[in-house]
Amino acid sequence: MIYLDHAATTPVREEVRAAMAPTLEQTFGNPSSGHAAGRAARALVDEARDRLAGVLNCRPREIVFTGGGSEADNLALRGVMTREGAVGRHLVISAVEHEAVLETARDLSARGFEVSILPVDSSGLVDPADLARALRRDTALVSVMMANNEVGTIQPLAELLELTRSHSDALFHTDATQALGKLSLDMGALGVDLLTISAHKVYGPKGVGALFVRQGTRLDAQITGGGQERTRRSGTENVPGIVGLGMAAMLAERERELEMARLGSLSQRLTQEILRELPEARPTGAEPPRRLPNFCTIAFPGIEGELLLLRLDRAGVLASAGSACASGSQAPSHVMLAMGLSPELAAAHLRLTLGRSTTEDEVDQTAAIVAREVRALRERSPVQGNPLGTKPT
Amino acid sequence: MIYLDHAATTPVREEVRAAMAPTLEQTFGNPSSGHAAGRAARALVDEARDRLAGVLNCRPREIVFTGGGSEADNLALRGVMTREGAVGRHLVISAVEHEAVLETARDLSARGFEVSILPVDSSGLVDPADLARALRRDTALVSVMMANNEVGTIQPLAELLELTRSHSDALFHTDATQALGKLSLDMGALGVDLLTISAHKVYGPKGVGALFVRQGTRLDAQITGGGQERTRRSGTENVPGIVGLGMAAMLAERERELEMARLGSLSQRLTQEILRELPEARPTGAEPPRRLPNFCTIAFPGIEGELLLLRLDRAGVLASAGSACASGSQAPSHVMLAMGLSPELAAAHLRLTLGRSTTEDEVDQTAAIVAREVRALRERSPVQGNPLGTKPT
Repeated sequence: MIYLDHAATTPVREEVRAAMAPTLEQTFGNPSSGHAAGRAARALVDEARDRLAGVLNCRPREIVFTGGGSEADNLALRGVMTREGAVGRHLVISAVEHEAVLETARDLSARGFEVSILPVDSSGLVDPADLARALRRDTALVSVMMANNEVGTIQPLAELLELTRSHSDALFHTDATQALGKLSLDMGALGVDLLTISAHKVYGPKGVGALFVRQGTRLDAQITGGGQERTRRSGTENVPGIVGLGMAAMLAERERELEMARLGSLSQRLTQEILRELPEARPTGAEPPRRLPNFCTIAFPGIEGELLLLRLDRAGVLASAGSACASGSQAPSHVMLAMGLSPELAAAHLRLTLGRSTTEDEVDQTAAIVAREVRALRERSPVQGNPLGTKPT
Repeated sequence: MIYLDHAATTPVREEVRAAMAPTLEQTFGNPSSGHAAGRAARALVDEARDRLAGVLNCRPREIVFTGGGSEADNLALRGVMTREGAVGRHLVISAVEHEAVLETARDLSARGFEVSILPVDSSGLVDPADLARALRRDTALVSVMMANNEVGTIQPLAELLELTRSHSDALFHTDATQALGKLSLDMGALGVDLLTISAHKVYGPKGVGALFVRQGTRLDAQITGGGQERTRRSGTENVPGIVGLGMAAMLAERERELEMARLGSLSQRLTQEILRELPEARPTGAEPPRRLPNFCTIAFPGIEGELLLLRLDRAGVLASAGSACASGSQAPSHVMLAMGLSPELAAAHLRLTLGRSTTEDEVDQTAAIVAREVRALRERSPVQGNPLGTKPT
């Protein structure tokens, strides 16, 4: 099995499992309990917070642990937009945001908030001039992701943030779920107010994420109760998950530069080999360095992507069309459409995302298998360009 | 170490750890991925959902997995009260709800919703007549917990539900976080619309819970995004947590009757032994069968509860004053005050909650240690009734 869907999720690495193990055995206390068992659990949560603060170069108290990246995105958007006493009711997002931002913006829009959606160019990039035009006196929040989850395009965050600061009083949130472990997330250098991360994209466990909330940033809790996480997210702490996130993020950051150099070469090799075999294939997204090093995304004109994925799966290559997060959706990807791909080409898209287990040998095998399966699908196609006549229009 | 704080949290039991292990190793896929790795993870989530549905005697699709009990409570309250097109803006809760319900009701109240809070008697019970008086034409939701987390009092849920049905169109939610594994949670017999449970109270992992949502019940998602959990709770599924919850709930239900009979005798023995040594001690809460069998709660007039807990901790007995969930709070417990205890007596409260590891020997040792430490504190007390003069007034 060749797993090339690391943007969907990653296996928990051994060091993370080892760090989590005590929390599932002897260190089982509730961190809110004052006794010995509680204090031992609290110490592990504190240590994990310190580790994550080290990765983000922020204060430990600026970290809010959540049940995952989607919850963190929701907390950022809902927490800022619906906070008591807020005046601005205008939200700006990009057209290629993850569903956790996009759908939340839609929900807020249905509840009377105003949302502006920034277009992207054919490589998925937001034009800062579009943000400058969108910003208003009552803009409360701008949310533009750091790197896209379907094509890996890295947004010009520094420019977008500078514009936001100079043109408005809005806060700035970025979803860095795909960026953690791939790009530097130095909160001192980056300057954003809010940033989302998730553990399971960096060899940590599912069910845990975090929102960085810059000191002084006001946002309303979306889960209220016992007052955990300095009242910003109530509920007994997910000690195993938090410990796993702390360890996974620390290791990902430590290995980041070397590993990204390695994956950058491998993904380039993969793209080149596929293009050599299938010259008509169309790479999507941006060129390096504006693309995450572990992303290889490519569209095959005239091919039904879902069928290609099925054949690859049977051949032992695990990949995806785009996001795994829009579960069961048959609609063409909003990211592809925003980049100007036709619905047909959007449905012919393959996302291969590399990770720690990926080897040169896997890359070479994958290129050969992809070429073979694309050719096999073409040979079956009665009509070039719309092989099965089953695409939604 | 004698752990008598099972209402705060429980250790993960071995069978649960064993069930979770594959999800942290080979079965690491994203359940939303269509390929082999995704399908394997999806199968585990489905199996866990089926197991939990078996425990609750409900349809698998009526279960929404969440990041814990607090999130489930928030989803029930916010999801019903703020749903689009809702007419009723009136919410009824009891005065002894968990903070996840109480604080959420407060937050809703601050946002323009109307909240009625039902009083309780000295044993912590809601009087159905009070509910009958509180219900209004615009009552959208009644939320009364099944069993209290500080004193274990079991509410007359059947009567409260019947009144709600006959007097209003309101939905009925119950927080059954403490009840799971102790009382029967048959959704056919119980008839509630919404019910909250949590894994870490029944020897499952922290960071995962569930909300039962009866088919046809409309509530708005509080975490939007990729549309997981039938759009009611987005975010990549916490596969390890969900698998752990399914296994933990199944085992808890299977062992429930025998284990509760055992713990009922042990807690009765513990109470009797403490009272024999300290006749002035005042048991709190209700008598069996209106009390959870694993709860032994008792107040020691004239004693500073926090000091007692410290001494017990040093002596190896891990207990609590009431809830672990109101972390770091110095205020007297809202539950004790609602039951009519004076702030002094509320601050002299000890909660001993028994569990799977509890033995008769531990119970006897604990009674002796509690008696010894209470006496030691009394001997230090310069003034009977207000020993240290440090209680907040």
